[in-house]
Amino acid sequence: MRTAILIFEGLTVLDAVGPYEVLRSVPGWEVSFVAPEAGVQRADSGALGLVADYSLEEVTDPDIVLVGGGAGNRPLMEDERVLEWLRSADSTSRWTTSVCTGSLVLGAAGLLEGKRATSHWLFLERLREFGAEPVSERVVEDGKVMTAAGVSAGIDMALNLAALAAGEETAKAIQLGIEYDPQPPFDSGSPAKADPKLVQQLRGQLSDQLRDG
Amino acid sequence: MRTAILIFEGLTVLDAVGPYEVLRSVPGWEVSFVAPEAGVQRADSGALGLVADYSLEEVTDPDIVLVGGGAGNRPLMEDERVLEWLRSADSTSRWTTSVCTGSLVLGAAGLLEGKRATSHWLFLERLREFGAEPVSERVVEDGKVMTAAGVSAGIDMALNLAALAAGEETAKAIQLGIEYDPQPPFDSGSPAKADPKLVQQLRGQLSDQLRDG
Repeated sequence: MRTAILIFEGLTVLDAVGPYEVLRSVPGWEVSFVAPEAGVQRADSGALGLVADYSLEEVTDPDIVLVGGGAGNRPLMEDERVLEWLRSADSTSRWTTSVCTGSLVLGAAGLLEGKRATSHWLFLERLREFGAEPVSERVVEDGKVMTAAGVSAGIDMALNLAALAAGEETAKAIQLGIEYDPQPPFDSGSPAKADPKLVQQLRGQLSDQLRDG
Repeated sequence: MRTAILIFEGLTVLDAVGPYEVLRSVPGWEVSFVAPEAGVQRADSGALGLVADYSLEEVTDPDIVLVGGGAGNRPLMEDERVLEWLRSADSTSRWTTSVCTGSLVLGAAGLLEGKRATSHWLFLERLREFGAEPVSERVVEDGKVMTAAGVSAGIDMALNLAALAAGEETAKAIQLGIEYDPQPPFDSGSPAKADPKLVQQLRGQLSDQLRDG
């Protein structure tokens, strides 16, 4: 299985690296990092660069295509070259997937029309703009489209994908290999569980960002 | 708080990126990626490159130092320049930390002598070679030394660290921001929970690797 992970300037790195670490561990699978232009893509934090070995034109018909999130993916939503690459990849893919706000890019490419999908909780409702039905779940599967909630949800999505495409035994071995036995010190990982004040605070920060930038 | 994450050729990327995504989200904190030589470090999979903006000499006295794992850290355990950098960083750090087999590098630098520590479950017992007491827990704190179990455990460690150093409210807000509400599809993330056959299989693969190379 050939997986193409689309990265870009201003990505949220864990969106891409969480699923990468799972998918690259499936025996025989191959993962490639692709960007509008090959080379170093700086993270949204500015503190890290990730190398895309391939430009869009160098990666055609991947079996799995994955788009992550981060403020840097907003320009992609208006970049016809990127959107056309996604539509073309989707036309032959076995799975078309996203993590976090990567689903907005899939939506902008027209690939979520009439589909159930998820996104980072702060952006979930925006999926409606693309004809998708927002679903507040960690991993949402609709046909061959699989979408994950915010940032860390890509790890769970990739384990689901590995189980479906390579078998449960393989997925379980990978989970053991990356010792994924999560023990967060708090139960604050979703708007349904976190202190409503924190939820409000993050919604406020987002509004400020959208207004300012 | 200035955090230095040591990366290197052949790293397991999620070891570094999991905690990075948490620590870079603490308001006012700064994360730098450091390597023996600045520039692109290829992952253990070969499929991805991470950019270290700084060489060892360019980063002195970080407040937090973090070392990740991956087969590529074995040469570091005999690289006196790296070990001396770690000892020097530790002499002034507020926290000295590791993820996965990064604890073996801390051990090789002499920083785990007499301390409780953890590592990837496959390598846990090796901590004894460095005078440490292996502890089969996901995150282990002993004084200012904090060690995490395999790969994905760095996310939990970083949330603990953020809570200790910046307050629980901050850590909870970050958990909500990265939507860390883990829902692995299986309960196979530790040797105590996984099918014993899988545990045996991974131990066998490790023995093969050690024998062959």
